[in-house]
Amino acid sequence: MAAKTCTNGTRPGPRPEYIPDHIPDPSYLRILDTTLRDGEQSPGAAMTATQKLHLARQLAKLGVDVIDAGFPSASQEDFNAVKMIAQDVGNKCDADGYVPVINALCRCNERDIATAWEAVKYAKRPRLLPFIATSPIHMEHKLGKSKEEVLQIARDMVKFARSLCCDIQFGAEDAARSDREFLYQILEEVIKAGATTVGIGDTVGMAMPFEYGKLIADIKANTPGIENAIISVHCHNDLGHATANTIEAARVGGARQLEVTINGIGERAGNASLEEVVMALKCRGAHVLGGLYTGINTRHILKTSKMVEEYSAMYLQPHKAIVGANAFVHESGIHQAGMLKHRATYEIMSPEDIGLESSNGVNIVLGKLSGRQAMKNRFKELGYELKDDEVESVFQSFKAMAEKKKRVTDDDLKALVLGEVSHEKPIWKLGDLVVTCGTKGFSTATIKLVSIDGSTHIACSVGAGPVDSAYKAINLIVKEIVKLLEYSLITVTKGSDAVVTTRVVIQRENNMVSNPILNGNNINPTFSGIGEGVDVIVSSVEAYLTALNKMLRFME
Amino acid sequence: MAAKTCTNGTRPGPRPEYIPDHIPDPSYLRILDTTLRDGEQSPGAAMTATQKLHLARQLAKLGVDVIDAGFPSASQEDFNAVKMIAQDVGNKCDADGYVPVINALCRCNERDIATAWEAVKYAKRPRLLPFIATSPIHMEHKLGKSKEEVLQIARDMVKFARSLCCDIQFGAEDAARSDREFLYQILEEVIKAGATTVGIGDTVGMAMPFEYGKLIADIKANTPGIENAIISVHCHNDLGHATANTIEAARVGGARQLEVTINGIGERAGNASLEEVVMALKCRGAHVLGGLYTGINTRHILKTSKMVEEYSAMYLQPHKAIVGANAFVHESGIHQAGMLKHRATYEIMSPEDIGLESSNGVNIVLGKLSGRQAMKNRFKELGYELKDDEVESVFQSFKAMAEKKKRVTDDDLKALVLGEVSHEKPIWKLGDLVVTCGTKGFSTATIKLVSIDGSTHIACSVGAGPVDSAYKAINLIVKEIVKLLEYSLITVTKGSDAVVTTRVVIQRENNMVSNPILNGNNINPTFSGIGEGVDVIVSSVEAYLTALNKMLRFME
Repeated sequence: MAAKTCTNGTRPGPRPEYIPDHIPDPSYLRILDTTLRDGEQSPGAAMTATQKLHLARQLAKLGVDVIDAGFPSASQEDFNAVKMIAQDVGNKCDADGYVPVINALCRCNERDIATAWEAVKYAKRPRLLPFIATSPIHMEHKLGKSKEEVLQIARDMVKFARSLCCDIQFGAEDAARSDREFLYQILEEVIKAGATTVGIGDTVGMAMPFEYGKLIADIKANTPGIENAIISVHCHNDLGHATANTIEAARVGGARQLEVTINGIGERAGNASLEEVVMALKCRGAHVLGGLYTGINTRHILKTSKMVEEYSAMYLQPHKAIVGANAFVHESGIHQAGMLKHRATYEIMSPEDIGLESSNGVNIVLGKLSGRQAMKNRFKELGYELKDDEVESVFQSFKAMAEKKKRVTDDDLKALVLGEVSHEKPIWKLGDLVVTCGTKGFSTATIKLVSIDGSTHIACSVGAGPVDSAYKAINLIVKEIVKLLEYSLITVTKGSDAVVTTRVVIQRENNMVSNPILNGNNINPTFSGIGEGVDVIVSSVEAYLTALNKMLRFME
Repeated sequence: MAAKTCTNGTRPGPRPEYIPDHIPDPSYLRILDTTLRDGEQSPGAAMTATQKLHLARQLAKLGVDVIDAGFPSASQEDFNAVKMIAQDVGNKCDADGYVPVINALCRCNERDIATAWEAVKYAKRPRLLPFIATSPIHMEHKLGKSKEEVLQIARDMVKFARSLCCDIQFGAEDAARSDREFLYQILEEVIKAGATTVGIGDTVGMAMPFEYGKLIADIKANTPGIENAIISVHCHNDLGHATANTIEAARVGGARQLEVTINGIGERAGNASLEEVVMALKCRGAHVLGGLYTGINTRHILKTSKMVEEYSAMYLQPHKAIVGANAFVHESGIHQAGMLKHRATYEIMSPEDIGLESSNGVNIVLGKLSGRQAMKNRFKELGYELKDDEVESVFQSFKAMAEKKKRVTDDDLKALVLGEVSHEKPIWKLGDLVVTCGTKGFSTATIKLVSIDGSTHIACSVGAGPVDSAYKAINLIVKEIVKLLEYSLITVTKGSDAVVTTRVVIQRENNMVSNPILNGNNINPTFSGIGEGVDVIVSSVEAYLTALNKMLRFME
């Protein structure tokens, strides 16, 4: 069934091969990026299938070895996204003939594995990643299974996955809290059954670097047959140690695949962040980390980071390492004095290494005299490929923005395309809005919404502030009881005529639904939306409508 | 001169003594919090003296051993803040008789040291921290001095500092890039000269944990007389390793004082964060870190974190470890399913450990029927002590808010007091504001400002959005050419009637001024302001006016 797309793990192009017996360079570290899967598990960070495709293209440009594209069993939308990425990014070779491995996550059951395969099989180099928890606490309380049962399931399911796909990664969830001997045993069995990569997860983010490094070294020393697999590491950041643990696992443990996310997003405190791991290796790899290196093109880091920040609406704190707004800014007089004399006094890497061209990251690129082709080309350089039918509407928005703003920067463009490309047929669309607010302590909003059937509806409401009054007016028209869980605003661009990005997360009141992943447990799903524009109130309304439309589509 | 306030480093109360020969427990790690000094060096994070005092009180409550209060030579305002903290927090014993050490930073010259002493001498347990760079690159390019000269200066200046104050910490800047033998030599000399703590800085944030741990261990093994001093570590987060480096320095190197900031704020990518270091030690100290522990009362962590987020306007990303909005949120179905069965499947610490009482952190405390005393008491519990003359104006704002919002939460209260307490006599105050905006593509603002002399001025302006039009109207009245460097919005509370906090950073056009720290080099200073309220436009205007007032006061 899979013969045609099965690549036996060989990796075309000049970079190192995958399967151990073909590894040309033992110091090469593979990067598995799981922004699209574990990153998307951040509360409220759900991305659309189109956004995921855009991001996967950018990850390929960044030089990621393995793109963890998603969890096809989670929903039909997740399935479609993985399939689309496999068909598109999974089949595009760059000039070197390099094409990334496309990975799909699955639990250790036949239905999950078969579903994952159906989504990922279109890639030139597909991979399946069946996982199961191996710690006593997870086996007892979550799975309700004995060690022997888990061992049997893992072995059988890896074998089944291998019958479909030649590149299999087995994931040991909560490995850091697992019994060592059991871990050696289960890894031995899954390697025998056909796993070519084994993932060791610090799922709860509790390990210290020396401890995690030793765990990986112990696995390498004590697991029979481990020389036939790559050890992969997956660290969470609950105690702030994910980056250090990941690197220490490679340095002392011999891990040769590192699982990371852009900006370190992910469940709870997130995952090890790609940019920190990669830049630490770039800065210190040759000096103190035994020559370890990755194939990442670091000059694409900042661009990728900004894209993820926008798509996931997981904004970064100014002091986020490598990609935060302040990462290359020197404030104190003493530091500035040093920098004026010699950059290396306080700078260990140059901003250009991560693709930050100017000191404030703003590139002036287009003005109101620029044409369609110039705009399209610049978008392409920024990693956005506009379809022909998208160009015209984006161009109109671009012209409108160029009229209002003197300088249209890259950040403006990204905010623009984000608004144009990612929304699909809205059930309710903003017609007109007039808001009055100020120091009088109350605000009035009058709003016109256009329904999907073309009919228009007008309502007005008073509220505590301009956003409150506008949302209340919308609720009057839409007739839903909506709980606003989060309302946040991020400025993407600079200046008081900046494009402001707003994010909301909402929930329908009393809307418990059954979730397939929860095995029958009910949850009340949340929906997020972002809006952008020079008017913060309009942007807030757009964000709310986007989330509302998602909610209404879900209810259908 | 100093005899009366000099404590010889002895530490009252039941917690471990300072000076090595009195240490009751070798596993105790002192926490030096430098949020008020290194944290404030974050671009745009400047705090007012009043905010600094509030924060210092909270740091004492948190159980910080040493409060690094500031750099008195940097400016008259910094001097005043340090003096105020020394007089207030530096003299308040808690029930256990504990009073924190108050530290002042100074460069290695007599003027700096004398100035620092003048500010800090009022504390019961004052400390001076003279520092000098010890790396070849800093000595050559920044200081323009030879090793011998640096050695001489360090020795002489520690001796001079010790003649004023009995508790001296010497700081070796950029120690991580220094020549080992030189480092042993200079540390030996400053300990002989009277330093009782020696700080080893990874100033550029480039160290890996095993490397930094070994540096500290080497210093301990090779520096004559090191047994007479505490080794302190100061790590920056440029490569995402600050937390891991700090802990590894204690675990393998024998460091017994850790220098951290709340939320990890600081120059560039910031410092090691108090909450990550402390919680890692709390969660793993007994199991894998040899029993190391701190005296921090972790239940005050979240409260302190929120205070710093507000005061510094350095907002946190949702996935910030320990204190981010998502740190205890579980999103994926699989994780939720696990959590429903057993919390420990995905949770290694409980939210209550850091003072997060409910799952969303919102505590309902007051309504519109609450009185002055109830409000004052709640503020006290939250760590804000209102002066008598502040109570009335805060109470009026509270009543106004309670009228508009059904439930006034702790977060609302904090946003409120922040607005009332931190502003000093404004040069321009907001009178009235009326703004119209919406989908028409332009916005109009009419504003009335009240000058410090009581006169009122009215102007109107059209702009690209409501904020732009309001700022333009202000500029018409104030007649300044202002460059808006940053404009960001953070939601402090939840719901569409939330209190929105806005932050701006501005600069005056063509305003190069001489800065004492830059030794004559000119800089164009930046000014930040925050505003809050239920109306995002009004909040934006308040933030702008605050920054503008700071700028105008500076120009005087």
